[in-house]
Amino acid sequence: MEVAEFGQDVSHGFNDELERIRSSFLQMGGLVEEQFGHALKALTDADSELGLQVAKNDVNINQMEVAIDEECRRVLATKAPAAGDLRLIIATIKAITDLERIGDEAEKIGSLAAKLAVVERPRTNYRELRNLARHVKDMIHGALDAFARLDVQLALDIVKADEEVDLEYETIYRQSITFMMEDPRMISRVMDVTWTARALERIGDHSKNICEYVIFLVHGKDIRHSDLRNLQADVRDPVDNQEVMK
Amino acid sequence: MEVAEFGQDVSHGFNDELERIRSSFLQMGGLVEEQFGHALKALTDADSELGLQVAKNDVNINQMEVAIDEECRRVLATKAPAAGDLRLIIATIKAITDLERIGDEAEKIGSLAAKLAVVERPRTNYRELRNLARHVKDMIHGALDAFARLDVQLALDIVKADEEVDLEYETIYRQSITFMMEDPRMISRVMDVTWTARALERIGDHSKNICEYVIFLVHGKDIRHSDLRNLQADVRDPVDNQEVMK
Repeated sequence: MEVAEFGQDVSHGFNDELERIRSSFLQMGGLVEEQFGHALKALTDADSELGLQVAKNDVNINQMEVAIDEECRRVLATKAPAAGDLRLIIATIKAITDLERIGDEAEKIGSLAAKLAVVERPRTNYRELRNLARHVKDMIHGALDAFARLDVQLALDIVKADEEVDLEYETIYRQSITFMMEDPRMISRVMDVTWTARALERIGDHSKNICEYVIFLVHGKDIRHSDLRNLQADVRDPVDNQEVMK
Repeated sequence: MEVAEFGQDVSHGFNDELERIRSSFLQMGGLVEEQFGHALKALTDADSELGLQVAKNDVNINQMEVAIDEECRRVLATKAPAAGDLRLIIATIKAITDLERIGDEAEKIGSLAAKLAVVERPRTNYRELRNLARHVKDMIHGALDAFARLDVQLALDIVKADEEVDLEYETIYRQSITFMMEDPRMISRVMDVTWTARALERIGDHSKNICEYVIFLVHGKDIRHSDLRNLQADVRDPVDNQEVMK
């Protein structure tokens, strides 16, 4: 496992502030995971009330996003961080947007689960959605874990896992089209299933984005829009944390 | 019209660098607008080749995003900007993600236009999509204009316009469900129309996000997740550019 440490650049003596930002991010991540878990439970158990509760609770995640962004700006304005410390702030400023959007998608899944709870259910109880959701759940958890431990290999694994999730989504989507053609009375329900699958696929994308920021944080290298096949070699060696960002 | 000027804080003497970041952002915005325009032309003229070309050209926007992000980080690392200058960098770092995602949605619309070009067209030639697209086009242009001129009132107008766009999208979505129920043979085509409408609606959201960053840039106030009705009063007075960010 390849890891790196924060705060090796202690010249500014603000490690506590960086640590606070990092732990606030992970705390927000915990809340997002909880919301996602409840949204899935609402879907699986046909629990309309729980689904609506998830949708209602999204406001807490939004508040955390605003507060963490503000804290990052305060540190930038008052401490002028450099090198790895600056990368932590920038990675957090970027990744927090994705984390908040995962919250938004969990909110959507909660609302859709509440709708699906009151209509007839297929015999499979949405097995295909639950499978996709399990993979996406692992992606969120892995992305937060990679951020917590600065684990580049785990981050890379999740970037790759997103390809699988995209394929699974496409399978569900094609199935949905077939179901709708076979039984047009089901169109409304199948559309809600499609939107749920779409929300799950988007959560996969956002988890992948967070992992790309983790890789940037450790390596100082922006790997977005890069060819996945070349990445493993590209990120082999972490940058010197003391190096001025280029 | 309420505007503010950059570089009032000239203590660091790096106005040229800030101006370059600002103009790179607007240049990227111009490219995004061009891509969006071509995607719509592909849809309206059933021009499959143009649609595919848009999808192919998205890579240029991605490259600009990475380059501008890098320039922002370089300025943060080497110049430790404060007050309004720091807000410009942070607003750019945030807004550029939305601008890139508008590019992604234009890419999707290009691909969908290419698919729709080769199937039978409705007599309306997708009038409802073209209407929605016109409003969204105004939103993108307005968001870039608000960023260029630091025009808070324009930014607020666009934040409000997004509510209309959401309603228009919902109308198209409900219509689509009806069309599919009436004629299941149309399901595949109607789904592509729905995804196009969805991409347009998402572009509206991203344009709105950019406007929220413009308001933050001028006022130092983070208005995301705020109640629209209170905003007008809240952002009446711009902050003193010399004030240290809180």
